[in-house]
Amino acid sequence: MNRGHHVKIKKAVITAASLEQSLLPLNMITDAHGKTCSVLGVSVQEAVSAGAEEVCIIVQPGSAEPYQAAVGDTLANLHFVNQTLQQGYGAAVYAAREFIDNAPFLHLVADHVFVGENGHSCASQVVSMAEANECSVSGVQATHESLLRHFGTVGGTKMLGESKVYKVNALREKPTPTEAEQYLMVSGLRAGYYLCFFGIHVLTPAIMPLLEDALNRDPTATVGLTPVLAELTSRERFLAVEVHGRRFPLDIPYGLLHAQLALALSGRDRDRVLTGLCELLAQSTASTH
Amino acid sequence: MNRGHHVKIKKAVITAASLEQSLLPLNMITDAHGKTCSVLGVSVQEAVSAGAEEVCIIVQPGSAEPYQAAVGDTLANLHFVNQTLQQGYGAAVYAAREFIDNAPFLHLVADHVFVGENGHSCASQVVSMAEANECSVSGVQATHESLLRHFGTVGGTKMLGESKVYKVNALREKPTPTEAEQYLMVSGLRAGYYLCFFGIHVLTPAIMPLLEDALNRDPTATVGLTPVLAELTSRERFLAVEVHGRRFPLDIPYGLLHAQLALALSGRDRDRVLTGLCELLAQSTASTH
Repeated sequence: MNRGHHVKIKKAVITAASLEQSLLPLNMITDAHGKTCSVLGVSVQEAVSAGAEEVCIIVQPGSAEPYQAAVGDTLANLHFVNQTLQQGYGAAVYAAREFIDNAPFLHLVADHVFVGENGHSCASQVVSMAEANECSVSGVQATHESLLRHFGTVGGTKMLGESKVYKVNALREKPTPTEAEQYLMVSGLRAGYYLCFFGIHVLTPAIMPLLEDALNRDPTATVGLTPVLAELTSRERFLAVEVHGRRFPLDIPYGLLHAQLALALSGRDRDRVLTGLCELLAQSTASTH
Repeated sequence: MNRGHHVKIKKAVITAASLEQSLLPLNMITDAHGKTCSVLGVSVQEAVSAGAEEVCIIVQPGSAEPYQAAVGDTLANLHFVNQTLQQGYGAAVYAAREFIDNAPFLHLVADHVFVGENGHSCASQVVSMAEANECSVSGVQATHESLLRHFGTVGGTKMLGESKVYKVNALREKPTPTEAEQYLMVSGLRAGYYLCFFGIHVLTPAIMPLLEDALNRDPTATVGLTPVLAELTSRERFLAVEVHGRRFPLDIPYGLLHAQLALALSGRDRDRVLTGLCELLAQSTASTH
């Protein structure tokens, strides 16, 4: 991180376009400052915390209006872009090609809540690594092999002099443990652990022509992001950084509960929320008698 | 509760029409059975748990479609009725006049989650009291005077032979402690406690002409439910029953968090949720070092 900060990441792309989960970004949550806002508003805050000034939200046609209302006040300029190609995650990112206009951009998914550590947001950690190294960077987390089926996973080599930074040389989407052992082993991690995606990336604009090629190859196929990132890796320098923080997927049972609790316990209302927890536990015990 | 059950309450009216909180009923929550559904779906479950077969949901024009999608599977027949008069809570209940068609009905608000006790839902407690006594019944809870500003409050006398049932003779909306002391004292409660509305009522159809009069008196005024219930009290027998259970308002900071936790701790996933809580607390402590 000794290089000069020539590159500033000012643009962010949030994919919020899933057909099945179209209501998820509209859910109400109390943020780390004790303010009620939407899940989408929390995602925008995460991008702004990393320096984003222009935020592009990829939506299904018809969702722009309720989503805009749900974001509420924000320091960033918001842009809503319809996802017109229904070819999955890759098509959602590709919908931002005019917005990014040949600049590197922060990308995060809207179906997770990210909780940073020690006052550093998760997105800001990925962005500062990208700005210092002037290349694409994916946030990753050391993850046990039993969970590989949920994640894109990277292999790579530790960068000299950097404690949690890796040069990526292989990527697989949801690998089997056998596949991971063969292609994605990273020295320095605990046995049985691999570097899995965190849901936050900084990408160079070179991703867009690669996405276009993948989408055109078979216009009926779903295009994931991971295989296209693998192509990018073979052309450009691509780093991964272990994020200090936690990510909470929202589309699972109790996903919102865990995200809300983690946000609240990391925020200014920690004591109040702990008190509320104790009261609830006391009442819920009494009621079972 | 010694009379025969001549009356069966088969209809329920859920008011979900607030302009400010129109997204609230669409929030995702994991119910007591571990199933992901909407807040509105949980409200419908509450009505069904009390025997409702026909459920009328009062919505703002344009909300019927997303709300219907949000309810999901239910045993009840759903009816969506637009609130056309924007004269507040009273106008929302009045919108159900054709639906109820001269039958008594269960009424609950959609911006609360109700958690019963010992396998008895909150709504079923109010409904069985109404069926046994063949009159209007409001669910209430003994509430400290410091919280009176949030609630409709009733005064009354304890019914002989019934432990938590009261004959209502006075009602005030959000009284001051002085007003409450003067008009709403109930013997048998702890000092400084009053009987406040729980958000669940069974009402006779006589409420509808009274609502109509109130709405017509000044077509520009907001009409609350409490003053109209006060009129009903002066004409008909009106009981209040202390509900064994808890109500969680959702439109306050951490409202959804507390509701979700209480639901989860009362349900089949209690142990799993407690384990998750402990993990989150351990991680959140570690991160502050």
